[in-house]
Parts: sequence; structure tokens; C-alpha cells
Amino acid sequence: MKIETKVEKFNEPLYLESGRLLESFEIIYETYGELNEDKSNVIIVCHALSGSHHAAGRYASEAKAGWWDKFIGDGKAIDTTKYFVICSNNIGSSYGSTCPMSIDPSTKKEYRLKFPVLAISDIVKAQMKLYKRLGISNAVAVVGGSMGGMQALCYAIEHPTFAKHIIALATTAYTRPWAIAFNKIAIEAIRHDPIFKNGNYKKDDPKALGLPGLAIGRMAGLICYLSPNLFNNKFGRDYASTDGLYELFGRFEVEKYLEYNAYSFPKFFDPLSYLYICKTMNIFDAGRNKDKLEDSFDKVQSNLHLIAFSDDMLFFPQEMEEIRDIMIKLGRENQVTYKLVESQSGHDSFLVEVEKFEDHVREILKDS
Amino acid sequence: MKIETKVEKFNEPLYLESGRLLESFEIIYETYGELNEDKSNVIIVCHALSGSHHAAGRYASEAKAGWWDKFIGDGKAIDTTKYFVICSNNIGSSYGSTCPMSIDPSTKKEYRLKFPVLAISDIVKAQMKLYKRLGISNAVAVVGGSMGGMQALCYAIEHPTFAKHIIALATTAYTRPWAIAFNKIAIEAIRHDPIFKNGNYKKDDPKALGLPGLAIGRMAGLICYLSPNLFNNKFGRDYASTDGLYELFGRFEVEKYLEYNAYSFPKFFDPLSYLYICKTMNIFDAGRNKDKLEDSFDKVQSNLHLIAFSDDMLFFPQEMEEIRDIMIKLGRENQVTYKLVESQSGHDSFLVEVEKFEDHVREILKDS
Repeated sequence: MKIETKVEKFNEPLYLESGRLLESFEIIYETYGELNEDKSNVIIVCHALSGSHHAAGRYASEAKAGWWDKFIGDGKAIDTTKYFVICSNNIGSSYGSTCPMSIDPSTKKEYRLKFPVLAISDIVKAQMKLYKRLGISNAVAVVGGSMGGMQALCYAIEHPTFAKHIIALATTAYTRPWAIAFNKIAIEAIRHDPIFKNGNYKKDDPKALGLPGLAIGRMAGLICYLSPNLFNNKFGRDYASTDGLYELFGRFEVEKYLEYNAYSFPKFFDPLSYLYICKTMNIFDAGRNKDKLEDSFDKVQSNLHLIAFSDDMLFFPQEMEEIRDIMIKLGRENQVTYKLVESQSGHDSFLVEVEKFEDHVREILKDS
Repeated sequence: MKIETKVEKFNEPLYLESGRLLESFEIIYETYGELNEDKSNVIIVCHALSGSHHAAGRYASEAKAGWWDKFIGDGKAIDTTKYFVICSNNIGSSYGSTCPMSIDPSTKKEYRLKFPVLAISDIVKAQMKLYKRLGISNAVAVVGGSMGGMQALCYAIEHPTFAKHIIALATTAYTRPWAIAFNKIAIEAIRHDPIFKNGNYKKDDPKALGLPGLAIGRMAGLICYLSPNLFNNKFGRDYASTDGLYELFGRFEVEKYLEYNAYSFPKFFDPLSYLYICKTMNIFDAGRNKDKLEDSFDKVQSNLHLIAFSDDMLFFPQEMEEIRDIMIKLGRENQVTYKLVESQSGHDSFLVEVEKFEDHVREILKDS
């Protein structure tokens, strides 16, 4: 599989939903496979909150491959011998695209808390500019889970002629207060972290790299990405150490798991990006409040494929079923498919249980 | 209804599960109604994590009545014209019973992080000493929800001849990793709060009273005490202010709710108590690890009444059903009842939806 990582700079404004703009912006992106002559073999992959453009393959320096490596590659469900796959780092995210720690051209300083709030549609709009520059005007499919699924739905609604297939996993048409509440823990923990300094933390402050507020926020995420059943099976009431029963701090395997994964997170993720992305997810509403969801989904021309997971504790299967029901109500039953995957892995199933939906995706793509 | 609030001091050691001891201890408790001559009309009420001994009635200074006022009173399901109700503040809690901020007699200073970890059985053991001093040797019923339900189960198993009825609501026989994970957010947020100063915060430091770490921990609790359905119905995607859509901080009603309730909490609850009580809940295991749950429940002589709530996201109904199934397996089907209450209020249903189980409790108590 051919892998390339590139950066595109756009010296033109990106007008945002908020009425604000980015005077210029950059997108870092990765591609897998080769673009065919008529540029008709493109599949777009969209990443989730803490994901990056590195969706597949493994760099020499890496212990682990890209986040969807099970799914994307030669002969895999998203087959890179056939398709040219593009995964961009979302603007707002801290893996190399324009984000709050980028330099604001008007001040020559980092944006930090002056960065504009982005909507999902802004992220998608920036990606569309990338495709235009690459001479790509349509895609076989747009595929994404969680916040990547929000992007996939946004492509379907706002760019209805772009993709033949939209494959949205573990996502929702609008973020419910339950999900907003989990994000709220992160927002408050980061805000109150004294190292955060109201967004003015030192960029290379080693303590900022281990920001406990972000770690605590990540912990809230880790809970709702998994499921009670998975926690029971994975950790039970096992001890992390045998002498901790009556010690106040530490004891259970589940606590050790949360500590390890939460405290390692700020070493590679920026707290300002985390705040902005939480906000982007919170305000996502495919119905755009004033309209009805039906009006939005009535615009869809792609085939819309919804994949939900039984134990998803962040975006419950009912939220995906709501989209299916709207499509049916609109008389689009031939244009929508819904698959409920039984899985104890919760929300993260779209990342870790690829084997449960890869054949379904192969089937979707088989004539494309 | 006659209400009395009293304190009992015990100048005798309380030997703890951990092998440690409290050299002396105090219990603040409240009583409702009047003790009859042969002391045979006692009902014990046990409170949850953030509850207190003030379960019913309203003080002149109070805006709100005690936490179970709908349930306890003259003519109510726990009828104070008939019963003498006792609710103690759990040791470890910060409402007046011995807790981490109490003076350690051996050092003449506050215990703080030198306070011993308490098990549910230690809390119950202290309460049993109170009843002994009051000349009370048995009860018509022990009633409690959540952590109060853990105490109720503990009475059933460790003091099997004490109560005729055990009524346990919204609780579990052993704390699962899902619940431990929510507590972990609180533990980590408090530990990393610089105002907490590793437990050495100033007692009267006004900032300590607003400790954001405890508030953030409370926020995690508030999420799992409610339910996705309740959040949807109560908050939807309503704005708290109309101008906040593209502002980074604040916007949604659910965020306003969480902020208000979380940030007011540290004004009346002590962070060290919160840490210790989380630990007490985390280590609760009626099966005591080495034994089997069956061995524990085989000791029960009381009638065991289990009340679960459909949308409980902290202690799921299946956890209550497990106890029922064990009782049936032990051939005790005549000694156990199980009621599943349909309620969107989640874990907090035991507090706020009393009307859905009060008749059931009246029926349980009617011949007592």
C-alpha cells in the first residue's frame, strides 16, 4: 500500500458558520493507494475527536498502526488496491492542521482562546477545498465513526452530490445533552487546571504536556467510549495490586486502566484543541435547530448507510434509528440501510470490532 | 411529627475491617416519631453518598425539607405516627459524625489523609453501637437507596436477626468497575486540585469551600445519577443563553444545570469525606471476594425487598436481579421480593419518584 502524508496551505479565507473566518488555513492529510486516471476511485475517511489523519499503515517509528488499520489497506474492506483513500486531520485538531495553537496571521501570535469555534460543516468545507485543489470532485464513499460520522452526515446533507455512499458509524444527527454532559467534565477540568492558565500555558512547558485537567476530561471520555459490560468482562473487581484494599488511592484494575490512558493522553493532545473539538461536537445538529431534521435529510442524494453498536453509551443505537426512520418517513427507504452490531465494546466498537461490520461495508462498496 | 437531632459519643474503639481502629467516634442522628414502650417500632433509614441524617422534616432555616421527606412522615409510607425512624449520619461523612476532618485523639489534629478507610460494614457496626446505647435490639425494617442500600444489604448479611424487613433500593451487591470509573473522576479531580493541597487545605479557606476538583467530581456523579432519557426530556438542546452558540464556554441548559449543581456542592460537602466515601463504595462487596455471594446471602434471615429502577445508569437493574436470583437459587423465594420501577429519573429515582414505590413499601410494612 502506498502511503503519503502531505500538507496543503490555503491562502484564502475560510468563512465559518459563526460568521467569523480563518484568513488562511492548512490541512495535513494522508492518502493510501493510488488515484486512478479519472479520479473516480476516492474514498474519504473522517476521524473522531482524538483521531488524526494517520488512519492506516505503520510508520517505522510507531508501535501501533493507524487508528483504522484493520479496515483500510490492501485487500481490506476499504481496499487500497482499488481505492484512493484520503484522511485529513480536521481543522481544530492538534495533529498538524490549523488549530488554536497555530499562528493567527493578523497578530503573528498563536490564536489560543481567540480561535473561532468551528462547526462540523466548517471542517467539511475545508476538506472540500482540499479535494478541489486535488482535482477531485466526487467520491465513492465518505466513511466515519463518532465525530467522523457527524462529518459523513454533513457531507450527505450539505454536499449531496459529492459521494455515492455515506457510511456513518456510532454517531448521531444531533448531540444530546447526555454526550454534552460528558464533554462538560472535560471543559471544566481543563478550564480549572492552573497549568492551563486560561489558555496561556507555555507551549513547551513539560507540565502542560501532562495537564491533569485534560487527563481528567479524557477519563470521562474513556468511560462513555466503553460499556458497563465491557468493564465487567475486562476488569471485574480485580486488584491492580494486592495490597491496596484499604489504601485510599488506587487499587482496582479499572482505575489503573483509566489512569494509564488518561494521563498519557495530554502528552500527544493539545488541551485547547480538546476544548474546541468538544464544542464542535456539542453544537452539531444536522437539523440546524430552526429547520427540522426532515428538511436536512430530504437533501440527501447519496446512499446512506448507518451502523450502530448495541452497547454504545455515547451515541445510543436509537439515535441512529431516528435517522433511518426519518429517511423512511421521507420515502427514501431504498436509499438507507441500518445495521445494528451486537458488541460489548461500546462506542469504541467502530474502532476495535471492525470484523463485525467489514463484510457489510464490502457489500456496500462491491459495485463501486 | 416529632423530630430530634442528637449526637452520641462513643469513648470506645471501633475496630475496622482494615485492621485499623477509631479510638473513639461520634454519631449525629435524627429521629422521627416516638419510640414505643417495648422499643419494637423502629425503622432504620440509611443515607447515600452525599446524604445526611436529615432525612425528613424541615428546619425553620431551610428552603427544602430532608432528602426523603416525601417518604417519611405522618401518614406517609414510612409512617411516623406508627414508627420511630432513625437516620444516622454515616461515619466518614462530613455532616457531624466522625470523619476525616475530625480530631484524631492520638495527635490532637485533624485526621485528614490519616483517617482510616471505612467499609460499609464499619459504618453499620458503628450504627449498631448507637442502637445498643438506645436500648434498641431490633428493627421493623432497614431501608436505604444507593450507598444506603449497600448498608441495608450489610444489615441483612452481617446482622441477620436485627431487622424483619430489609428494603434496598437502587443498589448492588458489589460495586462494578463502571461505578468505580465514575468515582475515579472525582478522586483524580480532587487529588489534582491545587487548593486541596494533598488533603492539607485550610479548613476555613473560602476557596477550599469552592474546590473545583470536588465540583468536577460531583459533575461525574450528577451524570450517572440521572439518565439519557431524563436529560433529553429535561434539557433537550435548549440554550441557557441565546448568544452562546459560537462561544467556547457555556451555552446549553444541561451545562448550566451541571455547573450550578456541581459548583454549589463543595460549599456544603468536604472533599476528604468525598474521597473516603468513594473508596467505601468502591470496596463494597457483599460476597467479600474470597467467599461467594451465595454464602453471604445464605445468612439472610430478614425478608429482603429489592427495588430497582429501569433507567438506573449507576447500579443497573440487572445488579438487583442478580441478588434476587441468588436468593431463589438458595431456595429463599419466599424471603425475597423484587420490584422494577419504570422511571426515567435514573439512579435518583429512589429520591425523586417516591410515588412509584411508596404503595409497595406500605404493603411490605402493613403487618409490622
